[in-house]
Amino acid sequence: MSASDEVQSRRVTRLRLDLSYEGTNYAGWATQPDHPTVQGLLEPALAVALRLLEPPRVWCAGRTDAGVHARGQVAHVDVPESSLAVTMERLAIQLRALLPNDIVVHRVRQVSADFDARFSCLWRRYEYLIDDRGVGLDPLTRAFVVENYRPLDIDAMNAASAGFPGLRDFAAFCKPRPGRTTIRELMEFRWSRTADGLVRADVKADAFCHSMVRFLVGAMLPVGEGNKPVTWPTDILASGARPDGEPGFNLAPAKGLVLAEVAYPDDSELAARAAATRGRRTLD
Amino acid sequence: MSASDEVQSRRVTRLRLDLSYEGTNYAGWATQPDHPTVQGLLEPALAVALRLLEPPRVWCAGRTDAGVHARGQVAHVDVPESSLAVTMERLAIQLRALLPNDIVVHRVRQVSADFDARFSCLWRRYEYLIDDRGVGLDPLTRAFVVENYRPLDIDAMNAASAGFPGLRDFAAFCKPRPGRTTIRELMEFRWSRTADGLVRADVKADAFCHSMVRFLVGAMLPVGEGNKPVTWPTDILASGARPDGEPGFNLAPAKGLVLAEVAYPDDSELAARAAATRGRRTLD
Repeated sequence: MSASDEVQSRRVTRLRLDLSYEGTNYAGWATQPDHPTVQGLLEPALAVALRLLEPPRVWCAGRTDAGVHARGQVAHVDVPESSLAVTMERLAIQLRALLPNDIVVHRVRQVSADFDARFSCLWRRYEYLIDDRGVGLDPLTRAFVVENYRPLDIDAMNAASAGFPGLRDFAAFCKPRPGRTTIRELMEFRWSRTADGLVRADVKADAFCHSMVRFLVGAMLPVGEGNKPVTWPTDILASGARPDGEPGFNLAPAKGLVLAEVAYPDDSELAARAAATRGRRTLD
Repeated sequence: MSASDEVQSRRVTRLRLDLSYEGTNYAGWATQPDHPTVQGLLEPALAVALRLLEPPRVWCAGRTDAGVHARGQVAHVDVPESSLAVTMERLAIQLRALLPNDIVVHRVRQVSADFDARFSCLWRRYEYLIDDRGVGLDPLTRAFVVENYRPLDIDAMNAASAGFPGLRDFAAFCKPRPGRTTIRELMEFRWSRTADGLVRADVKADAFCHSMVRFLVGAMLPVGEGNKPVTWPTDILASGARPDGEPGFNLAPAKGLVLAEVAYPDDSELAARAAATRGRRTLD
């Protein structure tokens, strides 16, 4: 290998991947020993497509839990410039061919090194779908809709959710991780009926703690069923801790949850955003 | 068994079933030897739920082909009155528990003997979904959306479809069945873009011949891709026969097709409708 070849092979370029997956068959995004995960399949697929000796490390906007789906996941990966032998469109087609049908890479783009799928992200939006019609699930959408056997009053759920948006400590709605802040800016939390009569939650925040959306949804179900007062979820929020053994406060099932959309600032603001996010996350 | 018990056990009552299924794992609606079908699973499930010695025969509104889905299928079945030990709501729950997750009986109702799922039906509406975005399917809806690798011009497809509605002989768009008429009243055939950017066909008729919707959709794809003129499908229709070996005229894949909705007249008109339908179908 000549000296210039060696420089060439060490030069890396950053790729942004836009992808979707049905989470049913995966133990979540993050690689785990002995369990299939999205990251665990995506990294070797990139190695095969790009003929790399080692799978490259992929970073994503939202590390979804086991069984959670994504329609608008974004990830980045650094690869040697020399490995890019085909167009980005062709690379996306190769990745779709290499991966199973329940993981779909829609687009691959070359981006600046300032783009960080996780830390440049402005906000994440999740959707949660519930069928409370009492006539069984629609078999065509059963993989991402949860059945609730009692009808839900979405006006009550909206009233209970209205007190949540804002910059708050969501400790009572997270699985705690030692040394990590549970302060987040919740930008949206509202309930609606879809055209098909399903109950849908839209939940948007700068970032989410572990299992936060499923705890938020889970806290609203007893309100929607009429078993808890509208003030019950905000009382839990104010208490700052999950009520131990309180009946009715359950984690909503993973399969109703979809990471729907993530947003990034303009290219010129990517680096500043990443620096600000990293700073805030480590300050507390 | 006393004489009155015997009379009781011979009295039958008609049940209407509203059901949905994902067709992926089935060789269609109708029972077949050696292949799983919806009818083939539904009839034994009814026998188990109602404790019948023999599976009862079930009749449906639209006998879907292998791989075709249904969201609004309707069927009827005659069962001994004496077998109805539980409410209709409870029977639906039992059937949901007995059947696999990809077949869902939403509702069971007792109906008059004039109700015939097939012959009382006023019209059937099918939907067909195509993804022409060129970025891979959404994995969450991949079971009922077909990918088309070239973009489709739905204005051209609508122009080509506009000449189809009406009472016509659809021989060129059917798999022929000896001795059966291919005259149908097509009430609607139009194309639209969904909110998700998919291409959707809505096709409604009094009844459909075998594979008719898939031939209608298949004839429009070359028009949408710009490979055939807008007049091409109506020329085939006028010719009265499928062009043998004509390139581009293909049966659209089964998995994009959903039987979406079927309609019945008011109770008082059920018998008259069934008689009229039977008459028309045998006249030709």
